[in-house]
Amino acid sequence: MQKNEVYLDNSATTRPYLEVSSEMQRVMLEKYGNPSSLHRRGSEGERLLQYSRQVLAEILGVSDSEIIFTSGGTESNNMAILGVARRYRKRGNHLITTAIEHSSVLEPFNLLEEEGFEVTYLIPDGKGVISPEKVAEALTPRTTLVSIMHVNNEIGSIQPISQISEVLRERNPDIIFHVDAVQSFTKLPLSPKDQGIDLLSISAHKFHGPKGVGALYLREGILLEPISRGGGHEKGLRPGTENTPGIQGMALAAKISYRNRKEKMKKLQSLKEQFITSLKTKHPWIRLNGPGKEEGAPHIFNISFPGLKGEVILHALEEHAIYVSTGSACHSGTGTSSHVLQAIKLDQESLEGAIRFSLSHLNTREEIEYAISKTNSVIAELKNFFHATR
Amino acid sequence: MQKNEVYLDNSATTRPYLEVSSEMQRVMLEKYGNPSSLHRRGSEGERLLQYSRQVLAEILGVSDSEIIFTSGGTESNNMAILGVARRYRKRGNHLITTAIEHSSVLEPFNLLEEEGFEVTYLIPDGKGVISPEKVAEALTPRTTLVSIMHVNNEIGSIQPISQISEVLRERNPDIIFHVDAVQSFTKLPLSPKDQGIDLLSISAHKFHGPKGVGALYLREGILLEPISRGGGHEKGLRPGTENTPGIQGMALAAKISYRNRKEKMKKLQSLKEQFITSLKTKHPWIRLNGPGKEEGAPHIFNISFPGLKGEVILHALEEHAIYVSTGSACHSGTGTSSHVLQAIKLDQESLEGAIRFSLSHLNTREEIEYAISKTNSVIAELKNFFHATR
Repeated sequence: MQKNEVYLDNSATTRPYLEVSSEMQRVMLEKYGNPSSLHRRGSEGERLLQYSRQVLAEILGVSDSEIIFTSGGTESNNMAILGVARRYRKRGNHLITTAIEHSSVLEPFNLLEEEGFEVTYLIPDGKGVISPEKVAEALTPRTTLVSIMHVNNEIGSIQPISQISEVLRERNPDIIFHVDAVQSFTKLPLSPKDQGIDLLSISAHKFHGPKGVGALYLREGILLEPISRGGGHEKGLRPGTENTPGIQGMALAAKISYRNRKEKMKKLQSLKEQFITSLKTKHPWIRLNGPGKEEGAPHIFNISFPGLKGEVILHALEEHAIYVSTGSACHSGTGTSSHVLQAIKLDQESLEGAIRFSLSHLNTREEIEYAISKTNSVIAELKNFFHATR
Repeated sequence: MQKNEVYLDNSATTRPYLEVSSEMQRVMLEKYGNPSSLHRRGSEGERLLQYSRQVLAEILGVSDSEIIFTSGGTESNNMAILGVARRYRKRGNHLITTAIEHSSVLEPFNLLEEEGFEVTYLIPDGKGVISPEKVAEALTPRTTLVSIMHVNNEIGSIQPISQISEVLRERNPDIIFHVDAVQSFTKLPLSPKDQGIDLLSISAHKFHGPKGVGALYLREGILLEPISRGGGHEKGLRPGTENTPGIQGMALAAKISYRNRKEKMKKLQSLKEQFITSLKTKHPWIRLNGPGKEEGAPHIFNISFPGLKGEVILHALEEHAIYVSTGSACHSGTGTSSHVLQAIKLDQESLEGAIRFSLSHLNTREEIEYAISKTNSVIAELKNFFHATR
């Protein structure tokens, strides 16, 4: 963090670990070969790829041949969704996802609708959760792909992935199950083999790794129609010279993030509860959106301050070097309300006055206490101001 | 370069400039915000993007709104070719490219053939050059896209881009002209507006920038069907959180590479000629593939040592810490002969005994003289050995 800064927008992006940026610099300057080159600099690059693949595979409990490197979460999601739907089109043209996915999931599904697929967008309950029963009801004999995010990026709701995959296996083991784990990887337990996940997307810059790098877990035996073509890199699924420094940085960031994961998440959960409790006590009129404070992901929560504008709060907090978000960074500036908050049926005032706080284990207790105190006073001031002027 | 190493595989990838890796580390640690975030860290990121876009736009003499950031040359080529062909399909289904393109151009065209397009693959002359007349002959009223590389990555032949675009403008100004400039950007003069280029692909790691970053020049008014979907980044054409450190690294690498470009290229041309002359003098039986030594790009040349195997030469040079290639890194290890060398009609022995030397302006005269001397002796030894054993 910068001096005196409290960065609480970790779901938008994180600051890379110092170790990650140093390791990337080392790879750039010392191991710069193209992994496809036949000489020593090439084999060095190839070994870096193998090592990084093993690191991610071990963390996920999968085979290293099941890890595909990509340019980020958006590409992983596109490859998975477009790739599976198109590849298995002869098997069926019905697809299922949810109304609260990230745009890099929703937009590929919209494209597939243009291509003639039928897509069911499941609506969550008021806490932002999709029940396995809802998934079961949506299944048809033509369903080939179900794509459901693990942790929602705006409200932190956790989907019951294992139970959903059980429903799928029972009803039709051929259905392919993709999980966007961009917000949950390194935070919640993830084990595709135990959880019945066929494809899983991750993005390095969400866990203190570099931007422009991600990965896709692709279960052995699942086929993909690639979205781009070129040299035979990544088993012909993702062409282009591999970004070895970035990939190595991603693997290191995953390793560091996984160290004492449970303790880190316990601390985050406690800071989150403290934050919510304090705000609720001082300002009982505010609204916690989505999961209750003891539910949901330990690092993301979303609060509406009805009567105030989210963007005004954001900039008021910015004056105290506290950085938050009004929703997904990928939608900011478009002027449209969050599709996630709409899906959990917030009223207009709550939609307009929503703030997402997203924490990292690197946030200290002191930082959070400073942020709580400043948020409390900023809200009190804004509230007074708007009361006075109304 | 590593100590005592002579890296002559700069068309496969280059070592990033020290300044580039330092700048990337600085951006990672200090300006790590998501450019879409509304707070200060976000606007900092957005300003970095604007700056990098301006740098590339100025170098190319285009508007900064015409620069799209991508994950590399392969993605730029895919976006351009798939994007234009599909977007303008109603206008016509005939496409033109050459038989000596990089796989990230050829493979998308193969895919388009599967989608029902008709593709003409132009065959170059013996020096690896496509004449404007050949392009003219291939045009049909249904032609929508012509894609021709500037500098060939295996033999260094230079295509007459301006003359080709003149032919296109004369015959049908609606035809869209894409140029894969991955091997020529920062080496040869490039000015899309003067040269009549509508789309142009570049890749940062070919000019001492980072891997995993590239750009596409897209002339104002040309439309693309994007290959992936998500948040509205890069005018909706290339979704995903922007890789700000990598993009900033690319812009800096371009700036550094462009400093004294002419002097750098003059030096490279002279080193190349010296290399070829010395080898030819010592071993008159060898064959310079593609352009003559005074023609072609200043940094790439390809020599066949008939009777010897390219891979054996490569590893013998590796023993002296001299790194070269048997062809495109993107094809290495596949066991198939170079499609480029086949297109210029090399005999089997010349195909099997080919070595690509690709230089950088960072190669010193001493390095090249060392490489010349070692290559001469390695070839003499191998030749003697194979004569003795035949």
